[in-house]
Amino acid sequence: MRIARFSIDGNVAFGAVEGDPAGPDGLVVDVIKGIPFAEFELSGTKIPLDKVRLLPPVLPSKIVAVGRNYAEHAAEMGGEVPEVPVTFFKPSTSVVGPGDPIVLPAFSREVHHEAELAVVIGRMCREVPRERAADVILGYTCANDVTARDVQRSEEQWARAKGFDSSCPLGPWIETDVDPADLAVTATVNGELRQAGRTGQMVRSVADLIVHVTEAMTLLPGDVLLTGTPAGVGPIEAGDEVAVTVEGIGTLTNKVVRGR
Amino acid sequence: MRIARFSIDGNVAFGAVEGDPAGPDGLVVDVIKGIPFAEFELSGTKIPLDKVRLLPPVLPSKIVAVGRNYAEHAAEMGGEVPEVPVTFFKPSTSVVGPGDPIVLPAFSREVHHEAELAVVIGRMCREVPRERAADVILGYTCANDVTARDVQRSEEQWARAKGFDSSCPLGPWIETDVDPADLAVTATVNGELRQAGRTGQMVRSVADLIVHVTEAMTLLPGDVLLTGTPAGVGPIEAGDEVAVTVEGIGTLTNKVVRGR
Repeated sequence: MRIARFSIDGNVAFGAVEGDPAGPDGLVVDVIKGIPFAEFELSGTKIPLDKVRLLPPVLPSKIVAVGRNYAEHAAEMGGEVPEVPVTFFKPSTSVVGPGDPIVLPAFSREVHHEAELAVVIGRMCREVPRERAADVILGYTCANDVTARDVQRSEEQWARAKGFDSSCPLGPWIETDVDPADLAVTATVNGELRQAGRTGQMVRSVADLIVHVTEAMTLLPGDVLLTGTPAGVGPIEAGDEVAVTVEGIGTLTNKVVRGR
Repeated sequence: MRIARFSIDGNVAFGAVEGDPAGPDGLVVDVIKGIPFAEFELSGTKIPLDKVRLLPPVLPSKIVAVGRNYAEHAAEMGGEVPEVPVTFFKPSTSVVGPGDPIVLPAFSREVHHEAELAVVIGRMCREVPRERAADVILGYTCANDVTARDVQRSEEQWARAKGFDSSCPLGPWIETDVDPADLAVTATVNGELRQAGRTGQMVRSVADLIVHVTEAMTLLPGDVLLTGTPAGVGPIEAGDEVAVTVEGIGTLTNKVVRGR
């Protein structure tokens, strides 16, 4: 199932995305009664997808991200895959949805795209054993771990480089029925392919990351794990359109604008 | 005013702490109607402080902390004061209140106390000019930026070292009427003085930090800034009692226990 979060006429709801984009009715959202983090029903009320505004599919209390989880990206960053995964936070205030602008911060001259598979946590969990990792996952979405690369180089910890407002586009929806083991992950800028990798190249798998993170901290329903980016990161400029696609999930597209 | 958050008989409320601890009635909380992030009134309903359970005085959506903001502490960590402040996040799941246990994580053998002045943000803000910094502050509380020092050394980013559950004790309450310019900050372990500094030694002031952080990101009501720790950090062990005192605010005391 594809679970979207959307607004229409000032109301916010979750809905299941259904239909055939090429068919006569196109894609619709079947409005969910309740929230997707518990048992829920579809209402049967269907709204054409192009009549709603898609929002970030989830509002995470925290985003836990992993750095250099693809060997070729670690190499392009001038390093090796670290012995222990590099983990960092992006705050809830960094989240924007599909179609929202990525606002370049005034304190950076070099902002990069980073296409990633994002994992949406479905239930509160701590110290998850590897064999139970799948049980705590609601589904997957696309993420852009937007990074002020110059600030990342000049500041030892990455709170500002990777935590500025609009640095975490998520969407377009949560796909609950996809195997994350080997999916194509790509980024395009203005239609040109910039990043292309496969989740099968990840040094640590989704299950590995859940075990590692929950050794230390509780994850809450709606929390998001970012799983690292493949090689090919590069700059985005005001006026660009950047699109992250994860195979079997969809495409997350955002325009880039200059802040004040 | 001292604003506490507390529970009694399963209900949670904010209240103003009043009275004389040495007087016949001791300290009481006057229950707040509403929340302290908007105009509010005191109800006049007063409960003895020793009848309530103090909770973390605020539930932050994020905690933004600064590293090596006291020169002597930077020196004891083997470094200098960084040219640009080191900023990092602690997640909401790391917060505990006064009297709650600090649970030593199984993945660390060396957990340290770090006594700090904490700033509680009162209103949503972004790109705050220095002369308006005071306007976005609700008040101040005590914090312990508990750190798995061995993990901080071995992992490049500090999400696990400083983000584990119970690594951010806050309390005992929010003091709204104190000047943060030069307050004594101390930590004791089992009554022995371990850290003693003054906020006047901070390399960057509270106003500097608000300017720096909000250049990058929106702060929300209840978000917390940690302002760095003075020299004297050191290990805590299961069975210890660690107390952080900030002059003019109060004392935050937590027992240390071993996790499973």
